[in-house]
Amino acid sequence: MSLKLTILGCHSASPRVNAHPTSQFLEIKNHNFLIDCGEGTQVQLRRYSIKFSKIKHIFISHLHGDHIFGLVGLISTFRLLNRESELHIYAPKGLKEIITLQLKLSNSWTNYPLLFHELTSKKSELIFEDEKVEVYTIPLNHRIYTNGFLFKEKIGERKLKMENIHKYDEIKICDYQNLKNGRDFMLEDGTVLENKNLTTDPSKPKSYAFCSDTSYFPEIVPIIKNTTCLYHETTFLNDREKLALKTKHSTALQAANIAKQANIKQLIIGHYSGRYKNINDFETEAKQVFKNTLLGEAGKVFEIK
Amino acid sequence: MSLKLTILGCHSASPRVNAHPTSQFLEIKNHNFLIDCGEGTQVQLRRYSIKFSKIKHIFISHLHGDHIFGLVGLISTFRLLNRESELHIYAPKGLKEIITLQLKLSNSWTNYPLLFHELTSKKSELIFEDEKVEVYTIPLNHRIYTNGFLFKEKIGERKLKMENIHKYDEIKICDYQNLKNGRDFMLEDGTVLENKNLTTDPSKPKSYAFCSDTSYFPEIVPIIKNTTCLYHETTFLNDREKLALKTKHSTALQAANIAKQANIKQLIIGHYSGRYKNINDFETEAKQVFKNTLLGEAGKVFEIK
Repeated sequence: MSLKLTILGCHSASPRVNAHPTSQFLEIKNHNFLIDCGEGTQVQLRRYSIKFSKIKHIFISHLHGDHIFGLVGLISTFRLLNRESELHIYAPKGLKEIITLQLKLSNSWTNYPLLFHELTSKKSELIFEDEKVEVYTIPLNHRIYTNGFLFKEKIGERKLKMENIHKYDEIKICDYQNLKNGRDFMLEDGTVLENKNLTTDPSKPKSYAFCSDTSYFPEIVPIIKNTTCLYHETTFLNDREKLALKTKHSTALQAANIAKQANIKQLIIGHYSGRYKNINDFETEAKQVFKNTLLGEAGKVFEIK
Repeated sequence: MSLKLTILGCHSASPRVNAHPTSQFLEIKNHNFLIDCGEGTQVQLRRYSIKFSKIKHIFISHLHGDHIFGLVGLISTFRLLNRESELHIYAPKGLKEIITLQLKLSNSWTNYPLLFHELTSKKSELIFEDEKVEVYTIPLNHRIYTNGFLFKEKIGERKLKMENIHKYDEIKICDYQNLKNGRDFMLEDGTVLENKNLTTDPSKPKSYAFCSDTSYFPEIVPIIKNTTCLYHETTFLNDREKLALKTKHSTALQAANIAKQANIKQLIIGHYSGRYKNINDFETEAKQVFKNTLLGEAGKVFEIK
C-alpha cells in the first residue's frame, strides 16, 4: 500500500475563509495518523470524508495556536460520538494541562481513554513503534519548543515467488511464513533450497517527514536523510528572508535547500503567510533549487508510491 | 438606530461543514457586543465582513465547548492584528484560567489589555453599564453554571419639536440640551413653556435577551418580561422532550411558551441538535404557541426597529 497524505490545512497564523491552519492526515501501512490540529480541523475532516474513528494517534508539533486550537474540540467531538477506543496524543509538555483544564471546567470528561505522551527531549527520539511503523521526533528550531515527526515504514516481509514454490510439493502453506522471514528450505533428501530462489525482496520502505514550524535548520538533514517525502514549512518567500530569520520560519528557497541536502524524493510545501496572495509563487521559488516540489493545499491528497 | 443582530452560528455541539456553533454579533446604540464564541467564530466574522476592531466586549454564557472553543483563537488573532484597545470578557469563573494558560504555554501574551469579568452569581446582576446601555445576566438552568444576557437600551433624550421651537427667538441652540433633558423653558416675560409642547417622547428603548443553553425555566420570565427580542435555545423538538429535560435543554414549544409568558415582541430560535435534518420544523413547532417566531441561521441579520 502506498503512503497517502491528505492536507487538511496548510496556512499559517489565523484561520480565514479559505485558509485553514495546519493539520494533516497520514495513512501509512494501515496506520492513520493526524498531525497537528489547528482551529477548524474537525470540520476539514468532515469536508474530506475522513472517518473520525480512524484516528488513534495525534502528533502535535508545538503549542502555537495555529497548530493546536482545534484539538480540544476534536477530543470533545470524539466523546459526543461515543468513542470507546484509546486516543494517544504525542505533544510538548503542557498540552495535557491545556486540554484537561478545559474538560474539567466544562464538566465534559472523555468516556474513552485519553493518553498523553509528553515530549520534552531536544534530541530526536523514537516515540512510537509497532511491527509496521516507527515514528521519531525531529527537533526543530522555532520560537517555542517544537518537533517535526519522521514516520518510517519498517522493512516488510519477503515476497513469495509462487511459480518457484509450486515446483516443490514438500513446501506447504504452513512453511510460507518462514520463507517470508528469509529462511532457506530443506527438502527431505537434504537438499537446501536457497531463500533467494523462493522469494523476492520486500518493497522498499517509505518514509515521511513533517517539519513545521522551523527556521532554516540544517541540523535536521542527518535525521531526514533519504526520506521519501518531506513536508517543510515555507512561511515566507525569499523577499522576507530577514523576517523569516526573526520569526524563526523558513523561506521557500530554504525549504528546497533542506530537501536537496537531505536527498529527499518529494518535497511538499506549506504554512504560507497570509501576506502572499498567490501561493503559486512558493512553488516557483522552491523549484529553482528543488524540482520535485509540490504545493500543499487544503484538500489535496498526495500518494507516494 | 435599530437593534441589529447577526447570527454567526446557532447549531449545538460539534461544528460541521454547514453547522456552526453558537456565536452572535449584536449592535445596539453604537455598541458592538459579541455573544459566545464557538469554534470557527473568527472565520464566520470574516465571512460576514464584521470588522474585528469593532469588538470590545465579549459575553460568554457558559464553559461548554460549543460556546467557547473559538475564543482563544480570536484573542490570538487580535494580537496578530496589532490590536491596542482593551478587550473585556464577561464569563463564568474559569475562562480566564483556560485562556491565560494557553497564552502562557504558547508564549503569546496579548499586547493589548485583556480584562476578564468573572461571573459567579446565581442571581441576575448588572454587569455592564454606560450612558446608553445596560447589560444584566439572566441565570439559566443548564448542566453547568450558565447565564443568558439581557441587553437594554437606556431611555434616550426627548426629541426637539423644531417647528414649535422656531416660534420663539429666545430659545437658542445652547438651550436645546435642557429641553432634551425634559426641562420647561421660561421666557423673559416670565411665561413658562411646557416641555411637552417643545419636545416629543424619546424612542421607546429596545432590549434583547439571549438565553442559551437552558432547560425550560420559567424563573427567567420576570427578568425578560416585555423584552423586544428574545433568542431562546431550541435544541430539540417536542418529540424529544424527555431528552431535553435530561440534558437541560429546551424544545421549540418550550421556548415559545417562555416568549408568550414574557410578552416578548419577537422570538428568534436556534441551537438546533444535529439530529434534525430540517430545521424549519423548529419554526413550525414554535409558531403553534408563539406566532412571531423567526428561525435563527448563520448569516441571517435581524434588525429590530
